[in-house]
Amino acid sequence: MKIAIYGYGNLGKGVELAVRQNDDMELFGVFTRRNPESLKTLTGIPAYSSSDIEKYKNDIDVLIICGGSATDLPEMTPALAKHFNVIDSFDTHADIPVHFAKVDKVAKENGTTAAISVGWDPGMFSLNRLYANSILPDGKDYTFWGKGVSQGHSDAIRRIEGVLDARQYTCPVEEAMEKVRKGENPELTTREKHTRLCYVVASDDADLARIENEIKTMPKYFADYDTTVNFISQEELDRDHKGIPHGGSVIRTGKTGLNGENNHVIEYSLKLDSNPEFTASVLVAYARAVYKLNKKGDTGCKTVFDIAPADLSPMSHEEMISHLL
Amino acid sequence: MKIAIYGYGNLGKGVELAVRQNDDMELFGVFTRRNPESLKTLTGIPAYSSSDIEKYKNDIDVLIICGGSATDLPEMTPALAKHFNVIDSFDTHADIPVHFAKVDKVAKENGTTAAISVGWDPGMFSLNRLYANSILPDGKDYTFWGKGVSQGHSDAIRRIEGVLDARQYTCPVEEAMEKVRKGENPELTTREKHTRLCYVVASDDADLARIENEIKTMPKYFADYDTTVNFISQEELDRDHKGIPHGGSVIRTGKTGLNGENNHVIEYSLKLDSNPEFTASVLVAYARAVYKLNKKGDTGCKTVFDIAPADLSPMSHEEMISHLL
Repeated sequence: MKIAIYGYGNLGKGVELAVRQNDDMELFGVFTRRNPESLKTLTGIPAYSSSDIEKYKNDIDVLIICGGSATDLPEMTPALAKHFNVIDSFDTHADIPVHFAKVDKVAKENGTTAAISVGWDPGMFSLNRLYANSILPDGKDYTFWGKGVSQGHSDAIRRIEGVLDARQYTCPVEEAMEKVRKGENPELTTREKHTRLCYVVASDDADLARIENEIKTMPKYFADYDTTVNFISQEELDRDHKGIPHGGSVIRTGKTGLNGENNHVIEYSLKLDSNPEFTASVLVAYARAVYKLNKKGDTGCKTVFDIAPADLSPMSHEEMISHLL
Repeated sequence: MKIAIYGYGNLGKGVELAVRQNDDMELFGVFTRRNPESLKTLTGIPAYSSSDIEKYKNDIDVLIICGGSATDLPEMTPALAKHFNVIDSFDTHADIPVHFAKVDKVAKENGTTAAISVGWDPGMFSLNRLYANSILPDGKDYTFWGKGVSQGHSDAIRRIEGVLDARQYTCPVEEAMEKVRKGENPELTTREKHTRLCYVVASDDADLARIENEIKTMPKYFADYDTTVNFISQEELDRDHKGIPHGGSVIRTGKTGLNGENNHVIEYSLKLDSNPEFTASVLVAYARAVYKLNKKGDTGCKTVFDIAPADLSPMSHEEMISHLL
């Protein structure tokens, strides 16, 4: 099956690398809004101009759209679903129903298959919430993120006067997770679930106390959290904080029994060295499913909830049953 | 939807309790090979003779078969799939392909829908192996079980001369799990992954040294493990070891990146106070899926791999997308 990438940032690069790990796929190329001639891909795959994409309609089985959720994907995914089987990682949770409806309409009208909001949250975490909720109806859900880099929070710090560079880690509070794992069903405030750890490079003449105060009191981003600010040099930041790790845990605790006397804990957790490369790996597995569904005539928009696990795998049904069940 | 239970051991009782937690289901009753008049159910639901079951064909939407994998299910599931939508927890891994083929044939011929090998292993653990393998093709799988009661190993000890009662716990080796979680990809022998912990009640005149030796050297069951034997009184066994807890972890570690430089760890873990009640809860969620699939005309035999997660949930698609994605 032939895969193409639309958008070549960290996620697009991750897809380029992930496709190489799957023998049943090949990469057609990358579509970019930049000048394709100036684009040097990691593995030498060809780059094309995004404005030419319709010409390649018959050369591409699934198009993996690697744009941003704020402004790119709400436009790109419905537009591209007109001509291609598509998949995206749209992650603005509140806007998913609207995005779904738009993509579903276009895909159904044009006989294409789409999957939206694929990755790990939304994505694998959502799946695990659904499975665990279905199995334990009398229970409580918890999601913890990190330790991992939040791009949005890092950007927010960089906008403060006197800040040259910054990296923000979201950290789960271990004691809170332990309480949850013990089945204590705690009610946890925002502050009790996560802390924020910041590494900041300031200009030589900057007022560090002011910067620290501006970070810690920033509404929405930091004010509701216990935040630690460390000032370091650009050299240290580049040396120690260059990666984009992330992860987290989805936990559901629930009760069964004649009088709810038995507790159960279901936990799904991820520890990822590279957030974009892992997200890309999930996208690529679901690209296989999108391809299979379209071949079966199953068109329209899908989420991870609507796709049977078998469709993600390159194995035959017999192999799966023999080796994985 | 109307659910019936076939077989009333620990698992059947778990199903009886689990159905009560699901508002969209009601329990028709229990079918037993014993005299139904002598059977007192936990919640007072009616008991019927298993030989009369065909009379109730039109009263039951899904039949949950709670028999043993050794001799019951290979006969029962194909026979009952002729008249009912059925689900079982067949767990003899090596025989699943044959069982699948038999049930699939009957179900397809009779327009029924069946799901086999549903529970947590096989079941939720299998699912997580499949998802993780599809996402990280370049990786390694590990499954650890416990700490939990193994009925088979407890029974094996009870067959030793001079043993009155026994309870065996399978315990994962924490150091091995930590190595796996760190992405060290260890090659682990049977002995390095699990230990076995036994609580044994011996008769007054028994030779304890002989019993301990017979346990520790028993082929297949104990010889390949580091085994600890504790002799206790029947009173202590009844007081401290009455529960049927279990659990475990499925872990996949894998690499991505231009040179495999990024490691990822996916872990799914369960901590269960009651193994049969949790297994029953999984069966009940999949009974909902079997019902929905049959309504859609999707007949034949299914496994957890073939069923889309959305079919397990009582939520509408809109609710799922809004609340869980």
